[in-house]
Amino acid sequence: MFDFELRKENKKSEARLGEITTDHGKIETPIFMPVGTQATVKAMSSRELKEIGSQIILGNTYHLYLRPGDELIAKAGGLHRFMNWDRPILTDSGGFQVFSLANLREIEEEGVYFQSHLDGSKHFISPEKSMQIQQNLGSDIVMAFDECPPYPAEKEYVENSLNRTLRWAERCKKEMESAEGQALFGIIQGGVYPELRQQSVEETTKLDFPGYSIGGLSVGEPKEKMYKMLEHTTPLMPKDKPRYLMGVGTPEDLIEGIYHGIDMFDCVMPTRIARHGQIFTHVGRKTIRNATYKEDFSPLDSECDCHVCQNYSRGYVRHLLKRNEILGVRLTTYHNLYFMLKLSEEIREAISNDNFINFREKFYSKYELK
Amino acid sequence: MFDFELRKENKKSEARLGEITTDHGKIETPIFMPVGTQATVKAMSSRELKEIGSQIILGNTYHLYLRPGDELIAKAGGLHRFMNWDRPILTDSGGFQVFSLANLREIEEEGVYFQSHLDGSKHFISPEKSMQIQQNLGSDIVMAFDECPPYPAEKEYVENSLNRTLRWAERCKKEMESAEGQALFGIIQGGVYPELRQQSVEETTKLDFPGYSIGGLSVGEPKEKMYKMLEHTTPLMPKDKPRYLMGVGTPEDLIEGIYHGIDMFDCVMPTRIARHGQIFTHVGRKTIRNATYKEDFSPLDSECDCHVCQNYSRGYVRHLLKRNEILGVRLTTYHNLYFMLKLSEEIREAISNDNFINFREKFYSKYELK
Ligand SMILES: [Zn+2]
Ligand SMILES: [Zn+2]
Repeated sequence: MFDFELRKENKKSEARLGEITTDHGKIETPIFMPVGTQATVKAMSSRELKEIGSQIILGNTYHLYLRPGDELIAKAGGLHRFMNWDRPILTDSGGFQVFSLANLREIEEEGVYFQSHLDGSKHFISPEKSMQIQQNLGSDIVMAFDECPPYPAEKEYVENSLNRTLRWAERCKKEMESAEGQALFGIIQGGVYPELRQQSVEETTKLDFPGYSIGGLSVGEPKEKMYKMLEHTTPLMPKDKPRYLMGVGTPEDLIEGIYHGIDMFDCVMPTRIARHGQIFTHVGRKTIRNATYKEDFSPLDSECDCHVCQNYSRGYVRHLLKRNEILGVRLTTYHNLYFMLKLSEEIREAISNDNFINFREKFYSKYELK
Repeated sequence: MFDFELRKENKKSEARLGEITTDHGKIETPIFMPVGTQATVKAMSSRELKEIGSQIILGNTYHLYLRPGDELIAKAGGLHRFMNWDRPILTDSGGFQVFSLANLREIEEEGVYFQSHLDGSKHFISPEKSMQIQQNLGSDIVMAFDECPPYPAEKEYVENSLNRTLRWAERCKKEMESAEGQALFGIIQGGVYPELRQQSVEETTKLDFPGYSIGGLSVGEPKEKMYKMLEHTTPLMPKDKPRYLMGVGTPEDLIEGIYHGIDMFDCVMPTRIARHGQIFTHVGRKTIRNATYKEDFSPLDSECDCHVCQNYSRGYVRHLLKRNEILGVRLTTYHNLYFMLKLSEEIREAISNDNFINFREKFYSKYELK
């Protein structure tokens, strides 16, 4: 089953509060979704993910199809059982990764021919194939197989791509007709062209999906363009369906996305910067690997109440990172994901209390943007 | 404070049951001690170490002295606070690592000049310096600064080394006179020469330490020689003091060591092989990275009740290891340490029930030795 209930709308912005119901439980929105590329959120265990309040995580179709293979995962009883995660899972379509293999792929109407980034082996993914893989994975929310054009891209290219994405969306929908307990989201494309975004919303919503993603943003365009596109696009989208902004998820993007009416976010950034020794704090990002923190025995973030900040110091975490100890990356990852999930929770609370605009202002008054 | 209570002796072997009391809590012996070389047991968090029943862990003086420095750790409030571990800690003297730097060190009566393996910087460690470092670390159990001769080594070399170790032991004892809450263990050396082992026991025990380590074993000699040396040495040692066999700790060595009257063990092997994809099971070691386990969705060890074996499969762990995902190493490490600690616990129970000899036979009837 899949259901979305819109619970509250913010009067002074597009921000909204909602609840998604799936076979693996409920998801309160707006929400940040940690990314588990290869059937694991890097450095985290499933019980730690629960402890920090992860309601839903992401899996990557492209990576799981290549290794260990979606058929192996099906044999294991699906992705939930394979990776020991009993809450909701969303899988992407594999499209984004395949289209990133610029020199290794060839796009045709039928689908995309590509070579594995691991061993150069040849593969073909079509809308139907992507749906079959995601059925094998058994995710709760499935993404349509779309083309994500690069930035910048000529309007004509984006328009042609958009139309193919629409034809592919229909094929995806057909392939998913028999799938039970999996909700297929349609994807809005159109680059940075307002009229193409409008066309994409109109045509995609005609196919009546249970939810919609916004793709093709945060692919290199200036932040202002992304926010502008959101401001233009979300008001065109149906109110009674969840809206997912794909691949976006810094703290400030979370706040701005929600301000513009987005319900779901995902991004590898919080876990990736953690592996490079960077952490979020309420006053901005800090590179905890730096010598400045050598004898700093205060918590990673003095305002954070996570397990790491309650028990470990900056100086200790820095020592671990410098010595390439796994625990260092575990601690920064844990804290960064907690930061994003706690921020989501605080935003939900603020929307619920009609306090979102104040919350947003207060956040920026402390958080230093780079 | 430091106290050892001998609680029970096995009638059919030298095995014994005891309890050590320190300022950071009690330790039931015999016990395996996980090694936290650089202020972290590789891949594990402190609460996971508690969850698997770690009563005491090891820290390495040589590594901590170099990075992050024992003075920094003292500023952080000692090693316990620095690494968020409130149970007992034992530190080695740094001697073993320094003497392993074959081409980078020079031994004199005063101490050892050596170059850091990290950056070639020049250092000097004497018995007094080793004690000062361990005081800065604030460990509960401190090791005397000894020389550990290689294997093989001429009797004359071992004898000279042994006598220097005795002179150094006296200097260590003197340096530790003012230290509170830290128990200094003397170290028995003598290579594989029974008469030197006897001499070492006699002379070292004259200095009256609260505990004794056996060093210079498991340094390349055949297993039979090690067991023979234990058989010869432990009956010469005082019964009312704990006995620690340094750097030894495969499952079979634990059983044989305990059989010969050892109370404490440490070894990096369980965590090291875990990082290489090897696990302990009740039928022997398995290389879980191998293709054999690709579609094996059973637990790492069907007889293990640890968190990993209750929640994850061999096929999943293999996938993680093949993809170099941190969680893979976390899961194998957790299981291997649990295996060693559970084995220690079962042995203590067997000794308590006068059942140790049966337990030992039963273990070998299933566990395949390589
Ligand atoms: Zn924190
Ligand atoms: Zn286990």
